[in-house]
Amino acid sequence: MEGVEVKEKDVCVKMLAAPINPSDLNRIEGVYPVRPPLPAVGGYEGVGEVLSVGSAVKHLSPGDWVIPSPPSSGMWQTYTVKEESVWHKISKDSPVEYAATITVNPLTSLRMLQDFVTLNSGDCIVQNGATSIVGQCIIQLARLRGIHSINIIRDRAGSDEAKEMLKRLGADEVFTESQLEVKNIKDLLTNLPEPALGFNCVGGNSASLVLKFLRHGGTMVTYGGMSKKPITVSTSSFIFKDLSLRGFWLQKLMNPDKVNESRNMIDHLLCLAREGKLKYEMELVSFDDFQSALDKSLGKLGSQPKQVLKF
Amino acid sequence: MEGVEVKEKDVCVKMLAAPINPSDLNRIEGVYPVRPPLPAVGGYEGVGEVLSVGSAVKHLSPGDWVIPSPPSSGMWQTYTVKEESVWHKISKDSPVEYAATITVNPLTSLRMLQDFVTLNSGDCIVQNGATSIVGQCIIQLARLRGIHSINIIRDRAGSDEAKEMLKRLGADEVFTESQLEVKNIKDLLTNLPEPALGFNCVGGNSASLVLKFLRHGGTMVTYGGMSKKPITVSTSSFIFKDLSLRGFWLQKLMNPDKVNESRNMIDHLLCLAREGKLKYEMELVSFDDFQSALDKSLGKLGSQPKQVLKF
Repeated sequence: MEGVEVKEKDVCVKMLAAPINPSDLNRIEGVYPVRPPLPAVGGYEGVGEVLSVGSAVKHLSPGDWVIPSPPSSGMWQTYTVKEESVWHKISKDSPVEYAATITVNPLTSLRMLQDFVTLNSGDCIVQNGATSIVGQCIIQLARLRGIHSINIIRDRAGSDEAKEMLKRLGADEVFTESQLEVKNIKDLLTNLPEPALGFNCVGGNSASLVLKFLRHGGTMVTYGGMSKKPITVSTSSFIFKDLSLRGFWLQKLMNPDKVNESRNMIDHLLCLAREGKLKYEMELVSFDDFQSALDKSLGKLGSQPKQVLKF
Repeated sequence: MEGVEVKEKDVCVKMLAAPINPSDLNRIEGVYPVRPPLPAVGGYEGVGEVLSVGSAVKHLSPGDWVIPSPPSSGMWQTYTVKEESVWHKISKDSPVEYAATITVNPLTSLRMLQDFVTLNSGDCIVQNGATSIVGQCIIQLARLRGIHSINIIRDRAGSDEAKEMLKRLGADEVFTESQLEVKNIKDLLTNLPEPALGFNCVGGNSASLVLKFLRHGGTMVTYGGMSKKPITVSTSSFIFKDLSLRGFWLQKLMNPDKVNESRNMIDHLLCLAREGKLKYEMELVSFDDFQSALDKSLGKLGSQPKQVLKF
């Protein structure tokens, strides 16, 4: 660590692991409205071990495990120096790959289940893009609260296996988009209540399917647009069905009001991960294999587990 | 009034005037999801004079002026018998044409300004369909509270006159849709803050223009769809601009929680009408001219003032 100045409030962290998330790639592609000054280091999240602390640092000591919370750019580094306030100390018995990935996807899932509509046990949600990690976490986190889930996935080779996988996680219903080309979509819900809350990360027709499932007065939260198609809504959906459409972006967690609450939620999520109640597929790869991890993350090698780099 | 039974809680009202609203016509066309059992009498709103009351009626007496509140079907009648709870007593010095029309349009405007976003003096709203009566009322009601308005109207013969008319009512800015075909719509706002609240009664491109004007975190309320085109929204509007899309339907005022509040709002609106602070163009027509009033309301004779039938 020669040549890097550690100021009095700074903490120098030796990174242990950091994932390649789609949001990291999108940031590099420049598609986000907020862009960093260049040169910039990628990586919104990860886990590291405290190496040294400045003289005014109060709550962290060498050897602690920390994650940046809210997510902070620059985690794709061997050593990262940031102010103490950036770092959240976590339990060292957390699996490293979950500690490295707990914020961008699982915290999104948990916040979206809590921040928009008050749900009770027995209620139901609907989502598209259900095979994504956010989608898988929503299924599991909902299930833990007794909330049912209706899940929409793309038609593709392997969709039967995807259905089985999601049902093992606790999904009540999983439909491919083509299964939903029916006159009255709600006839498909035999034992489930109409959902009050829906999640959309696809857009286009897939978003319309989420809207069709929603009950009167329901809310759809958009957090992604994988199809790159906009969302089209009829006037009557607003006037007669009283739907609300909202959006979610993890960046909002930068709001200081939300930081403590989000850190408590992260502790809860890591606890669930340790207990095996929250799981998703990842591949821990050596930094030497960065190029192949990047190719996999870019989708060049077909469907692959989330790539988590070990430093 | 022979042959009509007036039960103990009923009030028999001799109608004085009732308008032909687009919503009356839409109801007859069957486009609303809630349909009355047939045969049914049209007319959601109007004003009448109490002729006789049942033995259990406490707060109304013959000679009182009343309006149905919430709006209630069957006002296109010489005599209307409904329970006391339907009727709201109003001041007899209200202009009859305003008393007859105060609910469906002006109350919609006032509720939409109050129910979705907290606005303060100096704030700004944006709306399309600004020449509609709801639009004209929004301009005036906003202005009375020191709230600025940006107004979008169709390109058509007479749009210059429409602009002048809306500016006389207090509009800060009036644009035709074609004037808004610019790279950055917000460059057009020189002295106005970005609006936090928008109203859409058109759909299609016109709704997109409202969305473009809205500030980060803003809300668009849809209350009509005159173009019969849906509303199309980009994913980034939800995620990065944090927009909320909602709907408004006056029928929601049927909710008993809202009835008293709405009646107070109606009294306030009638007071403004008496003082000349809330105005819109109407044509009082004799019931004998019903056919021509209907033709005018259906748009068969070009742009015409709202038709209000005298009974």
